[in-house]
Parts: sequence; C-alpha cells; structure tokens
Amino acid sequence: MDSRSVTSKEIAQCLNRMRKANPLVHCITNEVVQEITANVLLAAGASPAMVVGEGETADFAKIASALLINVGTPYQHRVEIMKSAALAANEAKTPWVLDPVAAGGLPWRNKIIFDLLKLHPTAVRGNASEIKALGGEGAGGKGVDSTDSSDSAIEAAVKLAKAAKCIVVVTGATDYVTDGKELMKAEGGNVFATKVVGIGCSLSALVGAFVAGAENPLVAATACCAYVKKASEVAFVNSGGPGSFHNAYLDALYSLDAKDF
Amino acid sequence: MDSRSVTSKEIAQCLNRMRKANPLVHCITNEVVQEITANVLLAAGASPAMVVGEGETADFAKIASALLINVGTPYQHRVEIMKSAALAANEAKTPWVLDPVAAGGLPWRNKIIFDLLKLHPTAVRGNASEIKALGGEGAGGKGVDSTDSSDSAIEAAVKLAKAAKCIVVVTGATDYVTDGKELMKAEGGNVFATKVVGIGCSLSALVGAFVAGAENPLVAATACCAYVKKASEVAFVNSGGPGSFHNAYLDALYSLDAKDF
Amino acid sequence: MDSRSVTSKEIAQCLNRMRKANPLVHCITNEVVQEITANVLLAAGASPAMVVGEGETADFAKIASALLINVGTPYQHRVEIMKSAALAANEAKTPWVLDPVAAGGLPWRNKIIFDLLKLHPTAVRGNASEIKALGGEGAGGKGVDSTDSSDSAIEAAVKLAKAAKCIVVVTGATDYVTDGKELMKAEGGNVFATKVVGIGCSLSALVGAFVAGAENPLVAATACCAYVKKASEVAFVNSGGPGSFHNAYLDALYSLDAKDF
Repeated sequence: MDSRSVTSKEIAQCLNRMRKANPLVHCITNEVVQEITANVLLAAGASPAMVVGEGETADFAKIASALLINVGTPYQHRVEIMKSAALAANEAKTPWVLDPVAAGGLPWRNKIIFDLLKLHPTAVRGNASEIKALGGEGAGGKGVDSTDSSDSAIEAAVKLAKAAKCIVVVTGATDYVTDGKELMKAEGGNVFATKVVGIGCSLSALVGAFVAGAENPLVAATACCAYVKKASEVAFVNSGGPGSFHNAYLDALYSLDAKDF
Repeated sequence: MDSRSVTSKEIAQCLNRMRKANPLVHCITNEVVQEITANVLLAAGASPAMVVGEGETADFAKIASALLINVGTPYQHRVEIMKSAALAANEAKTPWVLDPVAAGGLPWRNKIIFDLLKLHPTAVRGNASEIKALGGEGAGGKGVDSTDSSDSAIEAAVKLAKAAKCIVVVTGATDYVTDGKELMKAEGGNVFATKVVGIGCSLSALVGAFVAGAENPLVAATACCAYVKKASEVAFVNSGGPGSFHNAYLDALYSLDAKDF
Repeated sequence: MDSRSVTSKEIAQCLNRMRKANPLVHCITNEVVQEITANVLLAAGASPAMVVGEGETADFAKIASALLINVGTPYQHRVEIMKSAALAANEAKTPWVLDPVAAGGLPWRNKIIFDLLKLHPTAVRGNASEIKALGGEGAGGKGVDSTDSSDSAIEAAVKLAKAAKCIVVVTGATDYVTDGKELMKAEGGNVFATKVVGIGCSLSALVGAFVAGAENPLVAATACCAYVKKASEVAFVNSGGPGSFHNAYLDALYSLDAKDF
C-alpha cells in the first residue's frame, strides 16, 4: 500500500481545530507516565482528566471529548475500570484510544489487550513490536521498548486496522497511520524521544485529543504525529540530554503554531 | 466583606518560620501529582511523606506536622485510607488540608468530598468552581479546571468557612483566604501555573506546611499563596514554556527568601 | 574495617559494561518516584519496566536482568506482588535490590521490610537511618529522610551484610558499600540530590542495573554510586535550584562517559 505524508496545511488545520475545541481527554493510563501525559495535553492545548474511581469512571467517559486506555501497568482492579470506561465511551460515542504497551511478551497482558481490542477502540497507537504482536506477527519487544522498525510493521498495521475496524498508528523513526484503506505517514522527530519515559504514552492521549470531533480522523491522527515529531526536533536543538529535552519538548508543544508547519 | 492583602513582612515571617520548623507533611494525594507535590515541599523547605498503607496511615497522620488529603483520583480503597487518616489527624490535633479536586461535576466524588468535609479539615483549598460547588453554588468546572474567576467565589468561600468552621483558600488570578470572619488576599502569579499539572495540588500541601504550628493560620495560609505567586512570577521570567516553567518554579521556591518580599 | 575508594578504572569499566548489556530492570517501586526512576534508568543506558499485575509480575521477574523492590508507599495488595516477584527472582537467579524506605519508624512497614529481607535480596540500598534500623540500631529517620550520617552506619551495614548475606549500600555524604567482608566507598556528590524526590530511590534501581551480570557485584555497586555522585556534581554546576538540577542530573547521567572518570 502506498503511503502519503500529511501536508503542512493539514497539520496546521488539525492543530488549530484541536486547540479551539480544547478537548477534555479522560486518561486511564499507567502509573509511570501520568504526570507527563497531563503536561503534554496541557501544553498542546487540551485538558487532561485522570478519572479512575469505581463510581464515576463510566459516567466521566461519557462526558469526556476522548478517552485513553493505556495498559502499561495493568492490575485486575484497574483493568475492570478500563473495560467499564470503554463500554461507556462506546455508548456515548466518545472516541477512545488503546495504547497496548508491551503487547506480545506476556500472556496475561496479551489477554487484557485483546479483550480491550474487542471493545472497538477508535484508534490503537503502539510501537512496531506492539502492533506486530496485535497484527499476528512478531514476539514482542524488550520490555516496553520496540525491537523492530516501524516500516516492518506496516503490513501488520493494515491488517489490524481492517480486522479491528479502527485507525492504527505505528510510531517509530517514521510514523505510519492507517484505517486499513489508506496509509499516511509523518517523518522527522528525534531519538531523544525514546530516552524520556512517556513520550509515546502521552502521544496516545494526544491522538485522542486530535481525533475527537475531527472531520477526518485518519488525517487528524497523522497530523498529531507530525506535530509531536516537529516538537521533538525543536526540543532537541534546545537540549543537553534527555532531562532538558523533556522540558524543551513541553515548551515546543506549547509554542509551535500553524505558521511553523 | 472587605479584603486585605497579606503584607511583605507577614510573608517573610511565615516563610522563615515554616522553613525553621521543616514540617513533615503527610500527603495522601492523587496519582498524577505525587512527584511535583514532593518536589514543591522539598524546594520550599518542608519534608514530604506519602504514606498510604492500611497498617500505618493513621499512625503516621498522628506524628506528621500536617496532613493533605487530595481527592483528584479517588477510588474506594484509597478513600477509606483518607478517612482513617483524617480521623487520626483530628485525634492528634494534626492540622489537615482538604483539596476537593473537581468538586461539583460528579455525584460519586461529591459524596466523598462532603463526607471528608464533615471530618473537620483545618483548611480547604480549591479553585473557584470547586469552592462554589462546596458552598452550594455552581455546577463544577471543566474536568479539573475552573471555569469561574476567584472573585466570583468569595461569597461561597465565606459561607463554606462559616459552615465547615475552617479556613477556605480560593485560588485564581487573585487568591482569597477566609476563616468566615476575615478575608485576606494574595495577588500576582502567572498563567503558566495553570499549564503545569499539580501546581494547585502541591499548593494545598504547602498550605499544610505553613499552617502547621502557625500562630495565625489565616495569615499563614495567605502568606503561602503570596509566596507561590511570587515564585510563579520569577519562574515565568526564566521560562520558554510550561516545561521550563515547571523547573524554574521549583528553583524559585527554593531561592526566594524573606528579603525578596 | 578499612574502606577503599572505587577507582576511576573500575567506574569506567562497570559503566561501559552496564551500557553494553542494556539491562532490563523490573521496578516495583513507590507511587511517587516512578517517572524519575524510569528516566534515570533510560538516561544511564538501562531499560526500565514497571510490571505489577497479578498475572505477570512473577513471570516478568524471571526474564528481567534485575528486579527492584522499593517499599516507599506499601499497601497490602502491592506487598503481595512484591513478595511473589522476589520469590520468582530467586528461582530464576535474577539479582534483586531492596530499598527499605523509612525503615525503623513505623512497625507495620518494618514487618514488611523484614519479611522481604528474609527473601534474600542481592543488595539493600538505604540511607543511614534505614540501614541502622535494619542492622539493629537507631530509631528511624524523619519520614523518608535520614537524620544520621552515613559514617555512623558503617557498623550496622557490615552487620546487616553478614546477617542477610547480601551487599549493603549506605548512601549519604560518602556512600559505603559492603558485603560484610570488604568495605568500599564513593565520595563527592551534591546536597541538591536530597532536594529532589527519587534520586535515592532511582539509585537503587540503577544498582540493580550495575549488579546484573557483574563479575564483582561489590565493585559494580560502588561504581554505580560513584557514577551518580559525579552526575550530581556536573548537574549542580548547571543548576539554579532543585528544579533545574533534576534535569541537569538526567543530562549528566546520559552524557558522562568512561573518559570522565
């Protein structure tokens, strides 16, 4: 399948639209990346809300603009909350994103991920190893890190998008986004993004913010990828290592504007 | 009710006293802001301790200088821990601060917050939407963000302070602090403080540090607000966005001294 | 017992070896320091993985290069996970590090720590108050902070190392490392490291990364301490306070190389 790059105009339009909408993103994410996920959403122009209580998660998923479910640190009680949130999101037509962290390596986790996949996510965002595992290939990465290139996961991504009827985002040196019919891509970025925990996880939340209310979710998700890749490039110039990169990345997400694309 | 600003002398005295006391602040806070809360307390000159275990939380609340209970991400098991900590704090006369995150919007959460409010917090710190919800007005904000100005919440704050017999801190463009009889205020600050998750939540912990052992808790709480507003102003000058603001804010909390007010 | 400093050559060799191995460190740590722990491991050249689920933690401890168990915020459910992970690590000969946060002050926590100590950690890393409490001396620190100097804990460290047949790392102004027979040390560092939450906790994870597969674990653990002390010194030069120190520390961990020792 041929791929096409998202255009500067599309990136600018999608970013402007998202910022104007200021979407409220309900995040049920892992224990490690909660702070960076909230800060990425705030810096980009969305509003984060981490709601995980037994008596309010389903209600909140219905009023949020988008929902993120990230299985980085699953445990039984939280998994039940995730499922109830996904069901409620579907009922209210809230778009939701599944981040299948470390799919492929651990059977118990795989079952959780495949169960969530059956609940019809609007989008799945993962690295190459994760997407290949979900698309029926590969054996998983090293812990949470991918051991494969994103190019090698295109076929699995398309297959997964068709089977799960959702948008699939594979991130890596090049990000690929597909709905099973079309294939788009975003290039650029910087390797420091792999040296800060949560850059990928928070991207999944931001995909939710971009997809919420988008006319063309495929374009919106790809525009989101291009926007964060650009932020990584800007951040790298202002960085002396992964610590300063983290902050420069948030600054860049905040400062980047339509005219920068 | 007329308001008066906290004086430079009061800020300096309260800051010096707090730092000399190096209060141990027991924090039971939400999943998202634990790290920034600990770092704010450390930078300011207090000692954080996050203790949440079934067998030690009540004991620890008795030996801490102050207790923070923040309901940002409540779930049933943690709520029970919060209640036992509040009861133990009262028994030991440990002052405690309630941060009623997102009060107003979600019924299940509201019940938790009102149940905690009945346990006699020493102070309540919230944004305008939250305080109005507790004072019987308004319908809550957008997720965790306020949709109202702090000025509009003065009446609700006074009413809440009288009803709950506690100090109420409403933060916003101007921070207002009242015990139901007097109304004090702190002005300044910077809007970047709303673009970093946990600046408000960590302020609630710091209010605990300032109020612990204070001769005049109303003045101490207002001095705390003025101190963090000043830190935001200093941080903004050294910032290129919310990422660098976060660190500059911690640096400013650490560096600011009596002579800076 | 006489102590000897780790040599520059040993530090360089241990750092190079660790980076080449890129060890996968399974972290079961406290709620507050998860992000900085992951970022420290990434910056240094290891791979973090926080796995805590009922159905996968024991399996993962068997395939990880090292395991960290940090009891900073214990609660019953998580303590069971910790125990199962320690048992699985032993079965698979995965080295594991115990970080006995705030040992000594709280009876419930002490029991948890002593129960874990019986499961044969490869190394224990704590501050002076914690190690003295485990070695049968002292009454604990102030919350999570030590009230004693590391020099005063040497005897307790040696005693603990002999009794528990493990390596004991006491950190402070000087870090001491012993296996009960030899005593090594690392000097330097900077006091800002005590003003950022998680610098000590993340060091415990990094000790796991250095000890995994090391020819001489005693030397490797001491080299690890010397490496982070050097990073603190470099970071301090580039810092205006604890906020900027945090990032500069991560940058330094990333940038420091064999030739810097």
